[in-house]
Amino acid sequence: MNRSVIRHVTGRILMLLGALMLAPLAVAFFYGEPFRQKLSYAIPIAAAELLGLLLAFRRPASLHFYAREGLVICALVWILMSLLGGLPLFLSGEYPTFVDAFFEISSGFTTTGASVMRNVEGLYHSTLFWRSFTHLIGGMGVLVFALALLPKGDSEGVYILKAEMPGPMFGKVVSGLKSTARLLYAIYLIMTAVLIGVLLWAGMPPFDAVCHAFGAAGTGGFGIKNTSVAYYDNASVDYILAVAMLLFGVNFNLYYLLLLRKVKAFFRDEELRWYFAIAAVAVGLICLNVRPLYDNVGRMVRDVFFTVSSIMTTTGYSTADFGLWPVFSHTVLLLLMFGGAMAGSTAGGLKVSRVAIYSKMSRAELRRQREPGRVVPVLFNGKAVSREGQAHLMGYLIAYVVLFFSLVLITSLDAPDFLTAFSAVAATFNNIGPGLGVVGPVGNYADFSLFTKIMLSLGMIAGRLEIWPVVILFSRRSWHRT
Amino acid sequence: MNRSVIRHVTGRILMLLGALMLAPLAVAFFYGEPFRQKLSYAIPIAAAELLGLLLAFRRPASLHFYAREGLVICALVWILMSLLGGLPLFLSGEYPTFVDAFFEISSGFTTTGASVMRNVEGLYHSTLFWRSFTHLIGGMGVLVFALALLPKGDSEGVYILKAEMPGPMFGKVVSGLKSTARLLYAIYLIMTAVLIGVLLWAGMPPFDAVCHAFGAAGTGGFGIKNTSVAYYDNASVDYILAVAMLLFGVNFNLYYLLLLRKVKAFFRDEELRWYFAIAAVAVGLICLNVRPLYDNVGRMVRDVFFTVSSIMTTTGYSTADFGLWPVFSHTVLLLLMFGGAMAGSTAGGLKVSRVAIYSKMSRAELRRQREPGRVVPVLFNGKAVSREGQAHLMGYLIAYVVLFFSLVLITSLDAPDFLTAFSAVAATFNNIGPGLGVVGPVGNYADFSLFTKIMLSLGMIAGRLEIWPVVILFSRRSWHRT
Repeated sequence: MNRSVIRHVTGRILMLLGALMLAPLAVAFFYGEPFRQKLSYAIPIAAAELLGLLLAFRRPASLHFYAREGLVICALVWILMSLLGGLPLFLSGEYPTFVDAFFEISSGFTTTGASVMRNVEGLYHSTLFWRSFTHLIGGMGVLVFALALLPKGDSEGVYILKAEMPGPMFGKVVSGLKSTARLLYAIYLIMTAVLIGVLLWAGMPPFDAVCHAFGAAGTGGFGIKNTSVAYYDNASVDYILAVAMLLFGVNFNLYYLLLLRKVKAFFRDEELRWYFAIAAVAVGLICLNVRPLYDNVGRMVRDVFFTVSSIMTTTGYSTADFGLWPVFSHTVLLLLMFGGAMAGSTAGGLKVSRVAIYSKMSRAELRRQREPGRVVPVLFNGKAVSREGQAHLMGYLIAYVVLFFSLVLITSLDAPDFLTAFSAVAATFNNIGPGLGVVGPVGNYADFSLFTKIMLSLGMIAGRLEIWPVVILFSRRSWHRT
Repeated sequence: MNRSVIRHVTGRILMLLGALMLAPLAVAFFYGEPFRQKLSYAIPIAAAELLGLLLAFRRPASLHFYAREGLVICALVWILMSLLGGLPLFLSGEYPTFVDAFFEISSGFTTTGASVMRNVEGLYHSTLFWRSFTHLIGGMGVLVFALALLPKGDSEGVYILKAEMPGPMFGKVVSGLKSTARLLYAIYLIMTAVLIGVLLWAGMPPFDAVCHAFGAAGTGGFGIKNTSVAYYDNASVDYILAVAMLLFGVNFNLYYLLLLRKVKAFFRDEELRWYFAIAAVAVGLICLNVRPLYDNVGRMVRDVFFTVSSIMTTTGYSTADFGLWPVFSHTVLLLLMFGGAMAGSTAGGLKVSRVAIYSKMSRAELRRQREPGRVVPVLFNGKAVSREGQAHLMGYLIAYVVLFFSLVLITSLDAPDFLTAFSAVAATFNNIGPGLGVVGPVGNYADFSLFTKIMLSLGMIAGRLEIWPVVILFSRRSWHRT
């Protein structure tokens, strides 16, 4: 393990984090918030810069590193960012304990959107802004951002990009890592800017439009109203956000194809087709199921489309209390929570491409059962998935299941019922936000014990980074041997 | 597809089923039950013999068959057996619809033990006996039984044995299929006889001892009292059954090792160690969790040990209403439901060996993530699991997950809450019996719609036969091409 590289890169990222926290500080000044509130941001900024400088000061002899270091850096940076980023929320006195603040900002960076705050309308503008801003930062990954900024060579980046970009990667669109990172970030920020504009056009106040655009872009879902998006009761806002969430759940590499005017290639993408097919089927099934609850079909379609888009892209905004929907709808939503949106997007969950390949692998096995000895290839996007690729996918699925149920076990020590325990883990590990039961769209995570909150926070980070980085960071073996 | 072989073998099995149904008819005579009750068994016996004769009469040109035919025969036979075997329950007027009767006997043959009958104490002795007897028949598999009896060569048997014996098979202990089948059945029946004797010694009435021994042997779990085993309120009975269930959850091949006095090899078996370790950890965890509910530690250990043994071996007898235990205990029990007991036993679920290999595969993936390109073997029982074997295991896991959640979706249309839907499928698909919520140990499956009952019945059969036979039977492709 090349510890000096880990130290150096971590330090540089912390300095970057400090710079990003100037934004909420600026908001605090803009809204003339009390001195304590400004200080709550100033202290962590100073701490991040100082700590970052100390760590990054001495340049390591070699900047070269391998997979292991890349994974460890990712996990370490995300945990440190959540700790330092949570500090203002605790210092300002708005959050009762440091663990609550840590939970909230882990939830922000991982674009989960699960909250421990009962009354978000009582928070300062700077805090509301910071929560939403962490979604924007976390969505594309802060390390990818750093990669785009830093004037370093490509060699170190490949492992970081692999570790921080969600989903299995099948080929790069743009050659050269730095240009890939820059291009993805450019598309991402432009789309966010457009969304802010459209939300303003629909009548949302400027501050609200910015926060909601950040939340949709990162598929995060922190609201700034106690009733989330339902507060606005505006059909245009609902449809704009629903469509926006869906679009931010698309693989960003595909948007590059659109830029190149390869429209056919865009629509030929197999994952994209699965993605829209799953969304359409889910909307249809839930509409049939909730039909008796609605007098107005238009209102029903609006609520169901919004909810499906919000859950499937693992955002978590809500316009309707789907906790009141029938059990069948809950089951559909729970399944959507696990599937998630597309690889290479800002969403969490297993990712549609994995789900598609898994289902193809099981169909291949069916054929092998029928005709033993037969070699059955698994095709995705017209190409055969290699045996090695299949082994990686399977190892991931098992690790996912094991970690998921371990978290359910831990949470069930502290939950009033099984649905709450199960869906709280489903909603945090998959980076969604609201679950069902006590943690449903009108509830929150405030009542869990500090221990459960810490575990769920680590679960969010593990889910966002697709498990391995966090497991490797905490496994002693990674550190002891070379 | 060699249809004539399928026809022929199916016919012979139906004739065998008719013969086995003479047992409950004899019980009806023994207890002097009404004429209608005797007729309810006589008619299906005649039907099975006639239908069997018609199907088996013409010997096919070739008795050779391949994997596909073996799998289709298995699925077909199990469905037909449940239909014909359920007929008496409907004809006797004890079960309101034929679907209920079909559910009950599917549940019997698959050794699930889930019941739609609210008041089992109101049933005739012949019916109670038949329900429990189906556990004994289903436990080891009726086709394996036929294999042991029929004077045919080995060639046809290998696919049937593979399809009907649960769990991944790693080598045969006895060479020669017929001798394997005979030996396994001999061990099975002798153990059942010993259990009857021990239950009599503990003070159980003879009829009850026979029924409970059958239920424990097949890890089925149909009770003959409304309160299941709690009715006897007898510590000896509880401990005898708990130990018996655990023993019937052991791979029967291992008992053959004991017969050969290879005691060391028996205890060296890796699956056996995992099995006992999981049971011990589960008992420990649940005891810690339910401690506040019990005044008496002895009573608590007795209840928890019995419940863990009953759920883990997928039997489903109950002495305590574990529905009243805390959420953490429910989660542990749900996990046990999925794990199941050992491969090559009479139990359902994923099987301990699969769970063990899955967890090792994910640890191998962790090492590959840390050191990309490294080849990491997966060892089980000291031998490397082949790439092909791993592919089979993974295909199975995905099919299992897909089928499981499809059944949860269907059941959730008809369930009052998610826990009921989820645990009803967990308890039937894994061949356990009681779930949680409405289908908990003091509830039953009576209130589900006929459609749900049919789906859960097919789910039980799919679970018992480890999925592929049922999927292949119902996939059009299996029938159209050669």
